Amino acid sequence: MEVYVALAHHPVLNRAGGTVATAVTNLDIHDVARSARTYGVTGYFISTPVEQQRSLVARITDHWTTGSGGGRHPLRAEAVRLVRVVDSIEEAVDQIARQTGAAPVVIGTTARTERATKSWEVQRQALLRDAGTALLLFGTGWGLTAEALAACDVILPPIEAIAGRTGYNHLSVRSAVAIALDRLLGARTNQSESSE
Amino acid sequence: MEVYVALAHHPVLNRAGGTVATAVTNLDIHDVARSARTYGVTGYFISTPVEQQRSLVARITDHWTTGSGGGRHPLRAEAVRLVRVVDSIEEAVDQIARQTGAAPVVIGTTARTERATKSWEVQRQALLRDAGTALLLFGTGWGLTAEALAACDVILPPIEAIAGRTGYNHLSVRSAVAIALDRLLGARTNQSESSE
Repeated sequence: MEVYVALAHHPVLNRAGGTVATAVTNLDIHDVARSARTYGVTGYFISTPVEQQRSLVARITDHWTTGSGGGRHPLRAEAVRLVRVVDSIEEAVDQIARQTGAAPVVIGTTARTERATKSWEVQRQALLRDAGTALLLFGTGWGLTAEALAACDVILPPIEAIAGRTGYNHLSVRSAVAIALDRLLGARTNQSESSE
Repeated sequence: MEVYVALAHHPVLNRAGGTVATAVTNLDIHDVARSARTYGVTGYFISTPVEQQRSLVARITDHWTTGSGGGRHPLRAEAVRLVRVVDSIEEAVDQIARQTGAAPVVIGTTARTERATKSWEVQRQALLRDAGTALLLFGTGWGLTAEALAACDVILPPIEAIAGRTGYNHLSVRSAVAIALDRLLGARTNQSESSE
């Protein structure tokens, strides 16, 4: 299955629970692009309704792909080349649909346990089995709004440690994307699964 | 088992294969601390032989724990409080040994397949079963030197995608730490393992 990633800067929550548009950070572009490239992601959408932010992302990615940065750092260029700037989550879905001929399965992520609709393992098996297209969606700030999650076809459970280790769940979105891709598309060679 | 993480800025490789000391980055402090806190890591060592770099890390962590940053961002403070600055990998091992009364099992990581001595799953089961202490070691730059790896008790395989997805392996060290902690200490609830 072809997998796309989208990092949404709107509509997401702030600490107080309000809906905001967050600022794009340079490192979210690079780290997520490198993770996306490592796990064979087809495209990495950076979504923001703020035109200046979209221009900023375009300038940064141009530098690393066609500009002087790309020549000196070809592996970085290879990752950043996956970036596509869009003004909304819907536009990312539309672009995928136009390119592939069918709407992707939109897979949302959240730090709220009660919203999950499918386990990581079941989703992994579905990705490995299915021939279609999936869009794995992450929210910046304090996560996707309830409305954004409600528009998803699937919602994955929060990323958590083994029960009892901690109740802390404040990974950076960069780390969350890396872990999610590994859970869904990571190699599991030499594994002899046993119960915990 | 108690698990510690160390991020080594020396001795690590540069792109040309030479041994260097890399610069500490602010985001490596924060992102790795948040991942460490999420997975119940006991302490996060930042190792560099450069005195000015150690002072820099101390200033940053002070700001977020006892300074003004901690008051406004208590969750961030909780993560950054795990940071311990040391001048070498050996000093991290010594500190753990002094605190726990026994030397930790040092678990190295590498992007080179041929060096691996134990699978992720076998190491995961060992961590879940054993009562001792482990130090999970990561190199910045282009990874730990052969000498640093040779001093490890265990070396884990490279983090890779499912066979055939890509041959690209240039995750940021922040992403690599997050994935490694999830592979070793992540929850696997609702999983019905099946063959791939």
